[in-house]
Amino acid sequence: MKIAVLGTGMVGTTIATKLIELGHEVTLGSRKADNDKAKAWLEQVDSDRASAATFADAAASAELVFNCTAGAKSLEALRMAGAENLADKILVDLANPLDFSNGTPPTLSVCNETSLGEQIQAAFPEARVVKTLNTISAEVMVEPRELPGEHVVFVSGDDADAKRWVEQTLLRDWLDWPEVVDLGDISTARGTEMYLALWVRMWGALGTPAFNISIVRRG
Amino acid sequence: MKIAVLGTGMVGTTIATKLIELGHEVTLGSRKADNDKAKAWLEQVDSDRASAATFADAAASAELVFNCTAGAKSLEALRMAGAENLADKILVDLANPLDFSNGTPPTLSVCNETSLGEQIQAAFPEARVVKTLNTISAEVMVEPRELPGEHVVFVSGDDADAKRWVEQTLLRDWLDWPEVVDLGDISTARGTEMYLALWVRMWGALGTPAFNISIVRRG
Repeated sequence: MKIAVLGTGMVGTTIATKLIELGHEVTLGSRKADNDKAKAWLEQVDSDRASAATFADAAASAELVFNCTAGAKSLEALRMAGAENLADKILVDLANPLDFSNGTPPTLSVCNETSLGEQIQAAFPEARVVKTLNTISAEVMVEPRELPGEHVVFVSGDDADAKRWVEQTLLRDWLDWPEVVDLGDISTARGTEMYLALWVRMWGALGTPAFNISIVRRG
Repeated sequence: MKIAVLGTGMVGTTIATKLIELGHEVTLGSRKADNDKAKAWLEQVDSDRASAATFADAAASAELVFNCTAGAKSLEALRMAGAENLADKILVDLANPLDFSNGTPPTLSVCNETSLGEQIQAAFPEARVVKTLNTISAEVMVEPRELPGEHVVFVSGDDADAKRWVEQTLLRDWLDWPEVVDLGDISTARGTEMYLALWVRMWGALGTPAFNISIVRRG
């Protein structure tokens, strides 16, 4: 599949590398086509299925788009990608609206009465936004079986078919996630984004970001 | 031990009943001493170790105080309890600042740049506030072994000795919690309070509040 991964940070390059390993054609999108991190990624993956381009060019040629930009800049990055290049496509939103302006642990730049996921869906109504994979570190996203047990990833979105594709194909078939919970419409992204406030403190207490949660129910 | 449980809702009465079963003397505190829910609780538990009183009288005679009031009214309830009746005592804060004024699922009345736990500690600097047990339903709080596995409860607080007592005596010895994670100072209550935004949506997706999370780490 032709895939655009928008964002050249840890999350974007980790996802992009995994998608290359899975056999896909991946364009890493950034503000400028000659982005240094994108060039470093291209050297690292060393694949003729890997390329780098502007947000707009990456999105235009893709069948599937990942938003891995920093949450505080996601709306601007997606505007640069272009609504016409996102229309009718599944937009997998991994971004969290982390605000480090007050130091660490970060606060959220939006929360409680809205979420970044909802803001993206509202700004790009023709995109099929699915919020997922935003509750774990990059390494856990792409290698969930490195952790033991039935640990969980969540999906939120308004488009039932898009969510089903993300759950079955992206999360279960491609990434081998052991458990996927559909929380409901895109407003439920408030739940997973606000969980970050606990996640960053669990990281502090555990001393590692290589963890996740599993859901325990009556047996 | 002589214990005050402030709040006559589901959480307060469930905790109070459990503490009676464990052999403690429990006074259920409310705005008025002849509160109907408190009277119903007294009839139900039918114990000479159970009593009901105003917030102030309950707190004054107690060695240990639980805040189980509705989060939106906790500061007011604790002011009625009286700073002098909370001073030097461990104040176990179970309340979440849920705001149902916009319907369900609720939003939080405070979050992100502060938390109810921090507001309570700031308003009652001589109380030894420990936030805990606010991430599960009342029935799971008092019977964690009804769920399988090493599921977790968190503690947050500025007073290390108070946290140690809460973890070892209240959570492990009295309530038999399988895992306790100390997140840090009282500001980490932001994490567990904001987790409620995910918790309420997990409840919706799972169809039951009888669940919890366990932490999965590299084996």
